[in-house]
Amino acid sequence: MKINLINIGDELLIGQVVNTNASWMSAYLNENGMRVCRVFTIADNADEIKNALQQAMSTADAVIITGGLGPTKDDITKHTLCQFFSSQLVLHEPSLDNVRSIFKKRNFPMTPLNEAQALVPECCRVLLNKWGTAPGMWFETDGKVVVSLPGVPFEMQGLMREEVVPLLLKKFAVESIYHKNVLTFGIGESFLSDKIEQWELALPENIRLAYLPKDGVVRLRLSAFGSDSVKLQQQVACEVEKLRALVGEYIFGYDDDTLESVVGKLLSEQGMTLATAESCTGGTIAQLLTSVSGASAYYMGGVVAYANEAKEQLLGVKHATLEQHGAVSRQTAEEMALGAKRRFATDCAIATTGIAGPTGGTEDKPVGTVWIAVATPSGVEAQCFSFGDDRSKNVMRASYQALRWLQVKLG
Amino acid sequence: MKINLINIGDELLIGQVVNTNASWMSAYLNENGMRVCRVFTIADNADEIKNALQQAMSTADAVIITGGLGPTKDDITKHTLCQFFSSQLVLHEPSLDNVRSIFKKRNFPMTPLNEAQALVPECCRVLLNKWGTAPGMWFETDGKVVVSLPGVPFEMQGLMREEVVPLLLKKFAVESIYHKNVLTFGIGESFLSDKIEQWELALPENIRLAYLPKDGVVRLRLSAFGSDSVKLQQQVACEVEKLRALVGEYIFGYDDDTLESVVGKLLSEQGMTLATAESCTGGTIAQLLTSVSGASAYYMGGVVAYANEAKEQLLGVKHATLEQHGAVSRQTAEEMALGAKRRFATDCAIATTGIAGPTGGTEDKPVGTVWIAVATPSGVEAQCFSFGDDRSKNVMRASYQALRWLQVKLG
Repeated sequence: MKINLINIGDELLIGQVVNTNASWMSAYLNENGMRVCRVFTIADNADEIKNALQQAMSTADAVIITGGLGPTKDDITKHTLCQFFSSQLVLHEPSLDNVRSIFKKRNFPMTPLNEAQALVPECCRVLLNKWGTAPGMWFETDGKVVVSLPGVPFEMQGLMREEVVPLLLKKFAVESIYHKNVLTFGIGESFLSDKIEQWELALPENIRLAYLPKDGVVRLRLSAFGSDSVKLQQQVACEVEKLRALVGEYIFGYDDDTLESVVGKLLSEQGMTLATAESCTGGTIAQLLTSVSGASAYYMGGVVAYANEAKEQLLGVKHATLEQHGAVSRQTAEEMALGAKRRFATDCAIATTGIAGPTGGTEDKPVGTVWIAVATPSGVEAQCFSFGDDRSKNVMRASYQALRWLQVKLG
Repeated sequence: MKINLINIGDELLIGQVVNTNASWMSAYLNENGMRVCRVFTIADNADEIKNALQQAMSTADAVIITGGLGPTKDDITKHTLCQFFSSQLVLHEPSLDNVRSIFKKRNFPMTPLNEAQALVPECCRVLLNKWGTAPGMWFETDGKVVVSLPGVPFEMQGLMREEVVPLLLKKFAVESIYHKNVLTFGIGESFLSDKIEQWELALPENIRLAYLPKDGVVRLRLSAFGSDSVKLQQQVACEVEKLRALVGEYIFGYDDDTLESVVGKLLSEQGMTLATAESCTGGTIAQLLTSVSGASAYYMGGVVAYANEAKEQLLGVKHATLEQHGAVSRQTAEEMALGAKRRFATDCAIATTGIAGPTGGTEDKPVGTVWIAVATPSGVEAQCFSFGDDRSKNVMRASYQALRWLQVKLG
């Protein structure tokens, strides 16, 4: 069952508002076995609406429109729908009662503009909006469905959950969809693709694979389509097992996992604590770790040692080490990690020191050079990495790399 | 001059990724005097791409496509464009050199998939991608332009800034637009709106105002439209002066300024140094400060003192203070700031301690309670703030509030 979305709103087309309605609706419809094939984002303009509606209806079983239903003059959706379906506006008493009761509750006076919100095309089925003043509308024509909803996210979401999706499921036979995300780190998209090529080619026809790379993490999304949801889950679990055999060493988690959450989980399970010592990552590892609610159970804190003096004073890095090997070196990274472990009295520590860029690079140590050290109860180790030219990307890559390395060590 | 966008990506249609490319592109084109009329979000599928391209070209002067250009098999855009423009793929040597140099720098071996990224339709003008491996492509047909860009945001943004928009401005006659952003902090959107209502109503017809709120910062964007760009700048400067008279106390900067950059600039100008002591903000202030290139000149470092022991050991907060007043208190915040100032031997320090949530709140100190302290050569002060329920929002608000307060003190 195919659905096209039309999101109406000038604010979307000047980039003032990000179209989160489209992503919420797509995800929710998808969870319910319906596939969004296309999203049209268009201006608040009668011709545009008619034109998009025609195009959208030509390739889908149902079209859901959001926006253009507010009380102010620039909202013309309702009149356009009347024209489109050769209908006329009539007063819908239950909707008028709803608008009245909302105004009464807020203690606001009603204006004629507000009353007009209860006018709906005669040919539609009204979807009562418990969350706001603009009613939803359901049209049927030639076996196809057109739904019009307000653009306010929580009103749209309420109507989708309680009215639109139940009605769609009643009207259309719907296929099941099951998604599983396999999260990898430390291997580029193209190398990953090479390693799993044969597996990918042999995937059953009803399973699709997508690569979603970000900040060094490549998310592999498997989507299985079929009629039996239990069978789909089994089928996907079986494919994930094969994938693990091929690239298991790069997999750090599944679905909503993050590197900071899996490291936190491991530390919690093992009753261990962690401290950080950051130079080039400037507090990003601390920020990632503390973005997980409950991190205070295992994360004791960290030092952002941007200046050499701070590396000496707060982390106990030896002056001679900095003199002899420089701040960006194996020795400094190791002493930073050990210093953090000692100062915060933790079981583990991670340290970073490098050249994030854009300045500060030398021939020996170009921008993107980062030493990462990990200290655990069994000792300390450091590795050198070469990232790229972009400051903020280098910081993210180095931060995730450090977390990933700790995860492997704790694993 | 009208532009339609086509964003390709299955991940957009299952709601896994929000289409921020569309909003960024719309805003950027708008700033440059071009209007986005429609956005098509479509699947990674040849027929869909052809169909959307046909529809998009019928109503716009230029169509910009993003996505579908990665090295892996699910990317079919390039082949579809070849068919559409009756062209064939040929090797583009400069793009191959670009791919090679990127792989050489990262010390990765090239695969045939990577080499194939340098294949482009013979009829296109290649837009060299300095930020990644997939080249941008510029097609012209019947006076219309079609551009294809990679979907990775920073690659797309780099190509838009340095190639696409300059070329579009050369080809099409575009009205002048002049934008000025006035950045405020510490006042909500509706209060700000009340204070500047009369000024807003009296704005000249060719100047538009937009409110863009994020993390406690409200960006006021003035956009002036006309033929004479010098006159537009004068006109806007005059309106900004009136605005300063009304709400100057909330204005912290203009255009691309950020709180971290204006604080950095002030510290540099005054030859002062800064350290941070963060509890509830978990390294976010450090991260913001170090995201500014050159921050090492004034930012010495910081401590993320998540555990009470860390507050004592690393910042010298007295055990008695923590016992008597608790970690979330004026006294602890002040001792943290003074401790950081002393340990890092800086002129200034900022400290945060609070309850980010979602757990940890009490009746006395509910979630969102944050003490912020600022130490300067003239002493230390602390203030208590009440933010909301949302963990990540609380962290951002508190971080910005701390920076804003230091700015005011240094100002």
